[in-house]
Amino acid sequence: MSLQLPVQTVSRLCLIYRVLLGMDRNEQLSSSKLGKLVNIPAHTIRKDLSVAGKLKSSNAGYKAGELLDFIKGLFNFDAPLRVCVAGIGLLGSSFIRNPVQEGGQFIIVAGFDTNINKIEVMKSEVPLFPAYEMADKIREMRIDLGIIAVPAQAAEITKERMKEGGIKGILNFSPAILGDKDIAVRNVHFAEELRFLTAMIPDLEKGV
Amino acid sequence: MSLQLPVQTVSRLCLIYRVLLGMDRNEQLSSSKLGKLVNIPAHTIRKDLSVAGKLKSSNAGYKAGELLDFIKGLFNFDAPLRVCVAGIGLLGSSFIRNPVQEGGQFIIVAGFDTNINKIEVMKSEVPLFPAYEMADKIREMRIDLGIIAVPAQAAEITKERMKEGGIKGILNFSPAILGDKDIAVRNVHFAEELRFLTAMIPDLEKGV
Repeated sequence: MSLQLPVQTVSRLCLIYRVLLGMDRNEQLSSSKLGKLVNIPAHTIRKDLSVAGKLKSSNAGYKAGELLDFIKGLFNFDAPLRVCVAGIGLLGSSFIRNPVQEGGQFIIVAGFDTNINKIEVMKSEVPLFPAYEMADKIREMRIDLGIIAVPAQAAEITKERMKEGGIKGILNFSPAILGDKDIAVRNVHFAEELRFLTAMIPDLEKGV
Repeated sequence: MSLQLPVQTVSRLCLIYRVLLGMDRNEQLSSSKLGKLVNIPAHTIRKDLSVAGKLKSSNAGYKAGELLDFIKGLFNFDAPLRVCVAGIGLLGSSFIRNPVQEGGQFIIVAGFDTNINKIEVMKSEVPLFPAYEMADKIREMRIDLGIIAVPAQAAEITKERMKEGGIKGILNFSPAILGDKDIAVRNVHFAEELRFLTAMIPDLEKGV
């Protein structure tokens, strides 16, 4: 993005964008209506949009299509990105089998695994390579983003290989918590999502 | 949970809990040290912990083990929960193949799919059932949480079946955005995570 926005604002604008994708472009939206759809207070939405920049709005609010285009332009969401997947287990394979994501915004162009046998045997539209070729292939194929779907103990080395190849952002599904001062890293941990869900349930009676 | 905490506080406490799980119980932590580990300002952590309740702390800060036990007790994280998975595709299978998650905090006890053939053929430790039996099985087996890993168009009906069975919380991996006034629902959308990552990368040069 061209301007430096607070992480929480970026996160909320991404959520709003996702909701807008499923709407009629001509739908008229007020901040409070939009707020209900994404479960965010209306004044927070107004603040986010004002921080993000000038957006043509009337008293009647925003037009869905214009708001969509505004966020799309703000973050360059119209340019497709090249993505690779490290770790071709069940989760990694689910990306390899669906190489075009979100109508072409993300295109899975390569997969990597340490198991050479698996790479040779597996049928895949997306080319698969041994993990040790990762940095070279990422550079050659000008890959933008990496998905890490390897076991925890292999997460750090995988991140380093991706960085070496010049990757710009990493989505980490391994249980390891990854961070980096040079590139954007997003950790998604399934068990933590379950734990958060557990914490949100009032007065849960438990017992297996 | 017994008290009503703000969602953001719950989310941060869950993140802190996850980091503490990997630490020595005797490690002494200050709010600022803890803050650096989870990338949250120290004063926010102090506020979260004070909102959450009384925690024995000295000027030296907190002991990792005591803080862990405090959060565990607050959210009842010591009681194992029974989890089911709807949709036995690649993602759903990855849960079925690892039925004991987080050292026993979550136990996958059942899987469901509309494809009866798949259920009969698939080898699995976890019992698999046809989707139409979902509500009955959830009730019979006293299942607490449900993971939705079905296509978008089947997400809503799956949620309804789970609710009918008395499920208390849902982790939704389908692209549909689910919400519910009666039960806790958490939406995790892979493409949205990629999009957020994209938005966080400064001055990304794009072009496939």
